[in-house]
Amino acid sequence: MTKPVLQVIIGSTRPGRVGPAVAGWIAKRAKQQGDFEVEVTDLAELNLPLFDEPHHPRLGQYVHQHTMDWSAIVDRSDAFVFVIPEYNHTFNAAIKNALDYLHSEWQNKPAAIVSYGGASGGAHAARALEPVLGALRMVPAGTVNVQAIRGHLDEAGRVEPTRQMDAAATAMLDQLADRAGLLRAA
Amino acid sequence: MTKPVLQVIIGSTRPGRVGPAVAGWIAKRAKQQGDFEVEVTDLAELNLPLFDEPHHPRLGQYVHQHTMDWSAIVDRSDAFVFVIPEYNHTFNAAIKNALDYLHSEWQNKPAAIVSYGGASGGAHAARALEPVLGALRMVPAGTVNVQAIRGHLDEAGRVEPTRQMDAAATAMLDQLADRAGLLRAA
Repeated sequence: MTKPVLQVIIGSTRPGRVGPAVAGWIAKRAKQQGDFEVEVTDLAELNLPLFDEPHHPRLGQYVHQHTMDWSAIVDRSDAFVFVIPEYNHTFNAAIKNALDYLHSEWQNKPAAIVSYGGASGGAHAARALEPVLGALRMVPAGTVNVQAIRGHLDEAGRVEPTRQMDAAATAMLDQLADRAGLLRAA
Repeated sequence: MTKPVLQVIIGSTRPGRVGPAVAGWIAKRAKQQGDFEVEVTDLAELNLPLFDEPHHPRLGQYVHQHTMDWSAIVDRSDAFVFVIPEYNHTFNAAIKNALDYLHSEWQNKPAAIVSYGGASGGAHAARALEPVLGALRMVPAGTVNVQAIRGHLDEAGRVEPTRQMDAAATAMLDQLADRAGLLRAA
């Protein structure tokens, strides 16, 4: 039996961002857990322009190749982890742009958020993203707010998680796997 | 005495958007009111990439020409109207992207929001944008939620405002002028 696909999405695009390190940690944990086929999509590499489709995404009438490519990635994914920074007390633009491009591709799939930045570990950004995922009819599967992320990087710039960070990630991944299984069985 | 500059920002970028029509209505009202030199910036034309500056905007150490150009526009502006659509229960990506690019250029300047979209006239989008403007230390100067905007377009696609819409726009522009004057005098 093929495993469901977990898509870990690097939401930040800024040169020097810590997003890839956080996503690398989550992807590694997910592979260890073994419930999912794990993929990582970097929105900086995906390089979508600011929303430029003429039709509402719910119609699925995409006219741009970049949208069709992004649609194919999300369509083949069964669950998501959105790794997001906090800018000006909420989520950054790139993650909202990527979410707004599509519609049915997101629906009824479990989604978790891993946020970082600011004193709260990106808690405001995560809180603000939740109703967006709700509007897209995704199924909430947990949120991890990583505080003081730059204090948890090794010399190579990789995340060195504390036991607490790994426990939070494990609980989130368990919830994603549970919901993905339940939704596939339904 | 030169008038303060009101910058009306078209926050949407989608082909077929109604944003330019809404901004055109607001800019026209502002010119009639006469308190401001009125400019309109279209984020679709400005065409900023997704945030790609390596340093935190509060440092002002911009490395890209597109950021310096945008900085110059915001720097010379004394007040703002953000004309925004509502996508997935909150603001769109382009307006957040444009805001996140800069920092000190926004500070201590009055800002109003004109939102549209959804049954609420974009009220969720406007509500979500308010703390972002607060994080940038802008001074709130009113919000107008335009309901059923496509029912208020004439054959040429221009906004034909109701008396109520014009009254709301006038109150907002008065508040912007008051705050701009107070802040310049201070």
